[in-house]
Amino acid sequence: MLRLATPGFLRFGQSDTLTATFGGGEANVAVSLANFGIPVEFVTRLPKNDLGTACMMELRKFGVCTDHVVWGGERLGIYFLETGAVSRGSKVIYDRANSSASGIQPGMVDWADVFDGAGWFHWTGITPAISQSAADVCLEAIQKANDMDITVSCDLNYRKNLWKYGRKASEVMPELVARTDIILGNEEDAAMVLGIHPEGVDVTAGHVDAAAYESVSRQIMNRFPRCKKVITTLRGSVNANHNSWSGVLWDGEKRYEAPIYQITHIVDRVGGGDSFMGGLIYGFLTWPGDDRKALHFAVAASCLKHTIYGDFNRVTVDEVLKLMEGDASGRVSR
Amino acid sequence: MLRLATPGFLRFGQSDTLTATFGGGEANVAVSLANFGIPVEFVTRLPKNDLGTACMMELRKFGVCTDHVVWGGERLGIYFLETGAVSRGSKVIYDRANSSASGIQPGMVDWADVFDGAGWFHWTGITPAISQSAADVCLEAIQKANDMDITVSCDLNYRKNLWKYGRKASEVMPELVARTDIILGNEEDAAMVLGIHPEGVDVTAGHVDAAAYESVSRQIMNRFPRCKKVITTLRGSVNANHNSWSGVLWDGEKRYEAPIYQITHIVDRVGGGDSFMGGLIYGFLTWPGDDRKALHFAVAASCLKHTIYGDFNRVTVDEVLKLMEGDASGRVSR
Amino acid sequence: MLRLATPGFLRFGQSDTLTATFGGGEANVAVSLANFGIPVEFVTRLPKNDLGTACMMELRKFGVCTDHVVWGGERLGIYFLETGAVSRGSKVIYDRANSSASGIQPGMVDWADVFDGAGWFHWTGITPAISQSAADVCLEAIQKANDMDITVSCDLNYRKNLWKYGRKASEVMPELVARTDIILGNEEDAAMVLGIHPEGVDVTAGHVDAAAYESVSRQIMNRFPRCKKVITTLRGSVNANHNSWSGVLWDGEKRYEAPIYQITHIVDRVGGGDSFMGGLIYGFLTWPGDDRKALHFAVAASCLKHTIYGDFNRVTVDEVLKLMEGDASGRVSR
Amino acid sequence: MLRLATPGFLRFGQSDTLTATFGGGEANVAVSLANFGIPVEFVTRLPKNDLGTACMMELRKFGVCTDHVVWGGERLGIYFLETGAVSRGSKVIYDRANSSASGIQPGMVDWADVFDGAGWFHWTGITPAISQSAADVCLEAIQKANDMDITVSCDLNYRKNLWKYGRKASEVMPELVARTDIILGNEEDAAMVLGIHPEGVDVTAGHVDAAAYESVSRQIMNRFPRCKKVITTLRGSVNANHNSWSGVLWDGEKRYEAPIYQITHIVDRVGGGDSFMGGLIYGFLTWPGDDRKALHFAVAASCLKHTIYGDFNRVTVDEVLKLMEGDASGRVSR
Amino acid sequence: MLRLATPGFLRFGQSDTLTATFGGGEANVAVSLANFGIPVEFVTRLPKNDLGTACMMELRKFGVCTDHVVWGGERLGIYFLETGAVSRGSKVIYDRANSSASGIQPGMVDWADVFDGAGWFHWTGITPAISQSAADVCLEAIQKANDMDITVSCDLNYRKNLWKYGRKASEVMPELVARTDIILGNEEDAAMVLGIHPEGVDVTAGHVDAAAYESVSRQIMNRFPRCKKVITTLRGSVNANHNSWSGVLWDGEKRYEAPIYQITHIVDRVGGGDSFMGGLIYGFLTWPGDDRKALHFAVAASCLKHTIYGDFNRVTVDEVLKLMEGDASGRVSR
Amino acid sequence: MLRLATPGFLRFGQSDTLTATFGGGEANVAVSLANFGIPVEFVTRLPKNDLGTACMMELRKFGVCTDHVVWGGERLGIYFLETGAVSRGSKVIYDRANSSASGIQPGMVDWADVFDGAGWFHWTGITPAISQSAADVCLEAIQKANDMDITVSCDLNYRKNLWKYGRKASEVMPELVARTDIILGNEEDAAMVLGIHPEGVDVTAGHVDAAAYESVSRQIMNRFPRCKKVITTLRGSVNANHNSWSGVLWDGEKRYEAPIYQITHIVDRVGGGDSFMGGLIYGFLTWPGDDRKALHFAVAASCLKHTIYGDFNRVTVDEVLKLMEGDASGRVSR
Repeated sequence: MLRLATPGFLRFGQSDTLTATFGGGEANVAVSLANFGIPVEFVTRLPKNDLGTACMMELRKFGVCTDHVVWGGERLGIYFLETGAVSRGSKVIYDRANSSASGIQPGMVDWADVFDGAGWFHWTGITPAISQSAADVCLEAIQKANDMDITVSCDLNYRKNLWKYGRKASEVMPELVARTDIILGNEEDAAMVLGIHPEGVDVTAGHVDAAAYESVSRQIMNRFPRCKKVITTLRGSVNANHNSWSGVLWDGEKRYEAPIYQITHIVDRVGGGDSFMGGLIYGFLTWPGDDRKALHFAVAASCLKHTIYGDFNRVTVDEVLKLMEGDASGRVSR
Repeated sequence: MLRLATPGFLRFGQSDTLTATFGGGEANVAVSLANFGIPVEFVTRLPKNDLGTACMMELRKFGVCTDHVVWGGERLGIYFLETGAVSRGSKVIYDRANSSASGIQPGMVDWADVFDGAGWFHWTGITPAISQSAADVCLEAIQKANDMDITVSCDLNYRKNLWKYGRKASEVMPELVARTDIILGNEEDAAMVLGIHPEGVDVTAGHVDAAAYESVSRQIMNRFPRCKKVITTLRGSVNANHNSWSGVLWDGEKRYEAPIYQITHIVDRVGGGDSFMGGLIYGFLTWPGDDRKALHFAVAASCLKHTIYGDFNRVTVDEVLKLMEGDASGRVSR
Repeated sequence: MLRLATPGFLRFGQSDTLTATFGGGEANVAVSLANFGIPVEFVTRLPKNDLGTACMMELRKFGVCTDHVVWGGERLGIYFLETGAVSRGSKVIYDRANSSASGIQPGMVDWADVFDGAGWFHWTGITPAISQSAADVCLEAIQKANDMDITVSCDLNYRKNLWKYGRKASEVMPELVARTDIILGNEEDAAMVLGIHPEGVDVTAGHVDAAAYESVSRQIMNRFPRCKKVITTLRGSVNANHNSWSGVLWDGEKRYEAPIYQITHIVDRVGGGDSFMGGLIYGFLTWPGDDRKALHFAVAASCLKHTIYGDFNRVTVDEVLKLMEGDASGRVSR
Repeated sequence: MLRLATPGFLRFGQSDTLTATFGGGEANVAVSLANFGIPVEFVTRLPKNDLGTACMMELRKFGVCTDHVVWGGERLGIYFLETGAVSRGSKVIYDRANSSASGIQPGMVDWADVFDGAGWFHWTGITPAISQSAADVCLEAIQKANDMDITVSCDLNYRKNLWKYGRKASEVMPELVARTDIILGNEEDAAMVLGIHPEGVDVTAGHVDAAAYESVSRQIMNRFPRCKKVITTLRGSVNANHNSWSGVLWDGEKRYEAPIYQITHIVDRVGGGDSFMGGLIYGFLTWPGDDRKALHFAVAASCLKHTIYGDFNRVTVDEVLKLMEGDASGRVSR
Repeated sequence: MLRLATPGFLRFGQSDTLTATFGGGEANVAVSLANFGIPVEFVTRLPKNDLGTACMMELRKFGVCTDHVVWGGERLGIYFLETGAVSRGSKVIYDRANSSASGIQPGMVDWADVFDGAGWFHWTGITPAISQSAADVCLEAIQKANDMDITVSCDLNYRKNLWKYGRKASEVMPELVARTDIILGNEEDAAMVLGIHPEGVDVTAGHVDAAAYESVSRQIMNRFPRCKKVITTLRGSVNANHNSWSGVLWDGEKRYEAPIYQITHIVDRVGGGDSFMGGLIYGFLTWPGDDRKALHFAVAASCLKHTIYGDFNRVTVDEVLKLMEGDASGRVSR
Repeated sequence: MLRLATPGFLRFGQSDTLTATFGGGEANVAVSLANFGIPVEFVTRLPKNDLGTACMMELRKFGVCTDHVVWGGERLGIYFLETGAVSRGSKVIYDRANSSASGIQPGMVDWADVFDGAGWFHWTGITPAISQSAADVCLEAIQKANDMDITVSCDLNYRKNLWKYGRKASEVMPELVARTDIILGNEEDAAMVLGIHPEGVDVTAGHVDAAAYESVSRQIMNRFPRCKKVITTLRGSVNANHNSWSGVLWDGEKRYEAPIYQITHIVDRVGGGDSFMGGLIYGFLTWPGDDRKALHFAVAASCLKHTIYGDFNRVTVDEVLKLMEGDASGRVSR
């Protein structure tokens, strides 16, 4: 997807240049993993024009395999971004309708070939939101992954401005989620996508407490027995420049909480959740059995993402580990 | 329409910034006329988001009235532009499908109100090319203009990469052209849109001669009796930086030819034809009966357009007159 | 007025590009109102050259009517801006002497025509500061507004680096203020322009308290019986990036205080006071009788201004209302 | 003087950034000479603000001595530049009225001290054009130079948009020119400043021939007996991107002509004449008695100037000599 | 290699930004081939820091395999580029001493592994010029290629500012050239590298004629019997913006000449020779036996390179074929 | 030294432009002093190419004398800078090996001539770190300064990524420090360069207290009897955008502490220590005997440096005094 952003903090209509980069939920996760040294492939459909090619080349630059990209369709999806400041939030204008990706159809991808030798498949709630056929392809892929005993993870990623093709998230998503092993989301995602709300929790308090997340996680795991872990990102929006950031993980028995980072001078928060997911998958793959470490890695990785321009998280494992180990001082390395 | 261009001569995929301006055939003509001091209104359909608003504001900046803009639909049409050099031509990628403009429907515009007090209506072959409903609205407007005795002009403007909704230009355009008083085009337009080719002319010669244009013009006027003048732009493409530029006008009896300009260091040729049309309408309105002067003004105005970045022709009447009077020396004014 | 600013936080002499936008006290108020949907006209004098024209076009872009602009004089006023950071304050270099605006003369504007159908006239202390003739025109306009029963507001806006033509603010301003209905200022303005100081207040305390403002407001209303409301902006300068921001309003009987906003990552504070005034006028016009709401709207509108580059406040009514209603979280809208 | 130019070929009002550099007739000559290794001092009056300081620092960067700059006055003179293309000429908007330089007064500069050890004084027709007092200071300096047996040169440099303080060039200049040893100008300068026209020459021919220059030069030398050489720059404006360029020198007995350069892709022609003068003075100082070489050096140096952005000619003696020796191929040096 | 260029036509010291891209003789050839769809690998040594990584990522973006890059050493080689105009040539400042590439040592690369499955090996005269060990590695690779029956090509590419480690090109290169099958160069290369000059040719004529190239080619093939084809690029430097461009090929029996292109508005000529080589190899691989077509493809491909910014030739096979087929008009594709 | 920085907060590899400025420890001190009005000369060795010349010109712009610069060697040292944010620290990649400066040799500089009329000599630990010969020249200069009774100051400035020529800081530095009168450093410098650690201090506490600095200072003065004052900069790294900043001075008898500044929105922290030293030397020269004032001036000056882009501290004495006097509010000056 092409991201066209006004420079600095300029509003739409205030700048006659736009910064053009590429991004999108699943691509962002793929780049995170590639940067951490994990072999990764990104599957999508791109138009056979110079913009589609440039998008593919950008992914290839990071070492993301693009061999199974399906070429076709009319246009590359676009989103326009205006970056907010203080009490003025950022704005996103989606222009993804009729994109090549939304026109993907079951049968276009040879998933058996894609998954040959793979151990993990990740999807997000963005894909089933853009068209029925994309939702169908998503299900097709998940089923094949299930068949091949590949771990499936998802980021619920509810976006109210998508889901315009006539079906609701709550109608489409459960079937997909039911076949998923690892679920990432936040309270809003759980409510809007799965209709799950915290129980026995006083949400009128100023801040939602950890118990709320445990309640939601328990309900998810009860409803979707395949699910082994539910992870929630915790974002506190002090203002557009300053967020707090953390996450909790529930493995069905135990709740792990990560430290809370104060991100006082955000450079770019778009892609924050995706970088969390990238860190999480890296952690699960690298330290199997140490969910606490995986969670901490995910939070630290995505904390760093907020300091990096663009959708992609351009950090190394060493940089994340340094932050996990407590060095958040931002000293000059020289 | 939003125009997103790579800076300088960079290729698509080579730049992470794009220059964002607004343009489009009819808008370009409107801005030309506004710059020449002619009261002008631009009617289109724009999405009710920050991009649609910015587009409207840009037109308003030039004094183009936008009171009858129809607000609605999903997206602003986009075209991506890569500027060529020497033997590498410029490239345009259209991304206009499903734009707000293409979704315009008959009845959305109160043409009687639009035309109240107006003397001229201009349309181009771009509009009927984008959707059936846009073609219908175009016809609706032309009919109303005919009813109200308003002069109607058109630029045939054939674009092979549009016309994708199932009908051909040759099926749709004749009905519209038949109700038009002043027709601008070039040989390719005549052939592709009207199926009219030069007669008794040896086109195997190196350059198409003026007689060819007369033959085509005669045929157009025979077929479309309402038509009073046919004007043809003459572009000689030495290379992407250097074009020759002129035009001829046939009024049914006499052929007027304008001087040929050598534009040796083109800044931006997109919108060249539209600036010609803007100059022509200005000329017809300002010097009625002096078609020769109108033609010369149109050629000089559009010659200057090639030296100006963006779709719009930002020149004054005085600047065009100075060039018409022979001062092409480009001396510093200080 | 042309605003030429060094990019980012660069100092004068450190950058070979300058960002060129337009602004100025009254123009900023006009643009605020136009953005809020209020029909508004801006009257000034501009030079008949490409810079004056560009300034007019920029206003027209926002829908500000410029029909009564007087064309003439030698030059467009300029101010140079260097944006500070932390403990280094921003710097402004005025270059407004002998501008077209300063050369405006009584009789050049047909105020009766300007005010035809108008309900409000706003002026600022900048205009009488630049030349005697500008002060005369200001008085001329105010008198006509009084005659036509149009509400008159002013922003005292004391600038020590203006007032160079031989008369002091305290000599010129009282006559103008005496004919004004709504007065905006701060403690320094009151002291320097009107010679009014807080009474019975211990100003040696760390912060000037609200009582001080009430005392000053009472004195203003006693001295200028026409005045119906006195409003004061409250800016706390933590440092160049972080200000607190609020306002108080005294209607002769009651003091209204707005919430205090912490603007922790200022994008551009120039024009903050003007955006306050724009919000205030909008509020008075929209919710007559609800001064509290008008004040809150003004404070919220101008709080948002601090997040927007340039002199103009590019926000909508909805955005201001959202902040007024308490959502200062700066979350992404997507 | 501050030069504010739109980037690329953008028109005024089309760009929200301006390129800020420094320049001006005499400063440009000074920088040329400093770049050639000649000790040189620039005397002017600058405002004591950050813009004046930046201007001084820029000159100091090139090694131009600024020890006798007079600090005072209100503002730095400005000129706005829009760069033309093909048949659209560049535009200059002067904003120099009331500059610090125009406010310079006789007695402010200790010319005896300035000229101590100096061998050459250069002035241009710009200085006496901006104010009576500047003309007076110019005369003061020339007289002192005459007294101290310092060679005096001038560039007549007629600018119709200056000379606004009530006197004409033809009233002021002759007294100054009469005390000058070396005079640079072109036919228009001679006519407008000195009232001298070519005699016995058919100027109706397409191009002014060399004889015309000789006639004018002879008349100048007859009228101003102190004058030892008259030099004329020859610019042929094919269009705004392509000029031909050369010069002729008359020493009272013999006419020297330089080769004609075709400058087919001009980068920046502003300052071309000043760079000619800088080259000429360098040549006279370096090769006394070899006027032909000095003239050729001047033409080659200023030919190169057209390829360099900004007012200043950033070339070395070696680069000029290489071109003089015939290598105009523009090959890569690596 | 990192290329740091001043923007536009600015001189060194005139810009405080530099455009950073990557390039270098062999890398440029590799990217050309990758763009044409040929599987290609680039072998070099890069420093293990963020600059070395960025260089590798850029190559990977084009699909160039970088699996055998040797990581180590201190620094990435740099060259600084100032782009000339008209009679001012471009300047290159090399800063390649002690680069990682120059520190490459025999044994660091497993050439047998690199060449596994390969059909072609290309080297240039740049590599043996930077250090003795780099020359040794070059020989090592060529010998292995010879052993494995891989076609070897070279571009003689003489650069006088390299060759600083104590040996001359004429001492080092012949041994390498002797093992090479296809040799690209120009007259200067032949003279400086191989000591071969045209025989029986009057070089005092204005232009070196084709016979000169045949003479040189014959001598090369006589001296190096392995050599099967000698190709010469023909550049005519009208000025820095306008070059003519062509090439000739001698296969030992017949001389093929390509059309001469007039490149009148060069965008970037650096990498022109490399793009020629890339086109040539593509042609030899694609149309074996049709040397004429290969030569024409090479000339057309490199002609297009002159219109593209940066070292790399970003063109497709279709674009080259279109130009070969005679369409040099640079029309807009839309 | 050339500083090449990615713009904004972009990472290496994320930007295709780099911002090019000049800087380096000693040069930064020199520019600080020149800006404060102190006559100052900078002695180094620069390559005789356009980059070396540009570096010299930049210093000359500030009025730093460069008359004793030694011209020669191969290259200008470079450092690449990536600016961090929040918990991601800035990164510096040094590329200084084999620079002209590192190739400086004893005897190349006529120190007696340099020091003629001088009162102060400052060196930093960077110089002896880059090569043995540079260390030798440093010693040569210090000895001559000692001989001529010139005050010698140093900034220990330990950089672990330099010191690569085979000797350790602890082997080279003591001989130089022993001849120095005023020593600036921090705890890490003292430990790594001099092997001096705080005594009797519990460093396990969260923050190093002032006693630690006194202990280190005492040890330094005991070991180096020539030393008269030891000054320590105190930087608290809250994160990459927010540092606290102060300093302490020990004169052998008394400890002076400066206020602590919270620099909450750092623009550029590189050169912070150098600007401290510049302020300190200015203070010692201006207010001899008032070490407290000198220290406060140094801290305030370097606090302001953190708000200024580039290595150089572009502030005036008045600006520093204003901050010293307590005005850290960053209000607009207009």
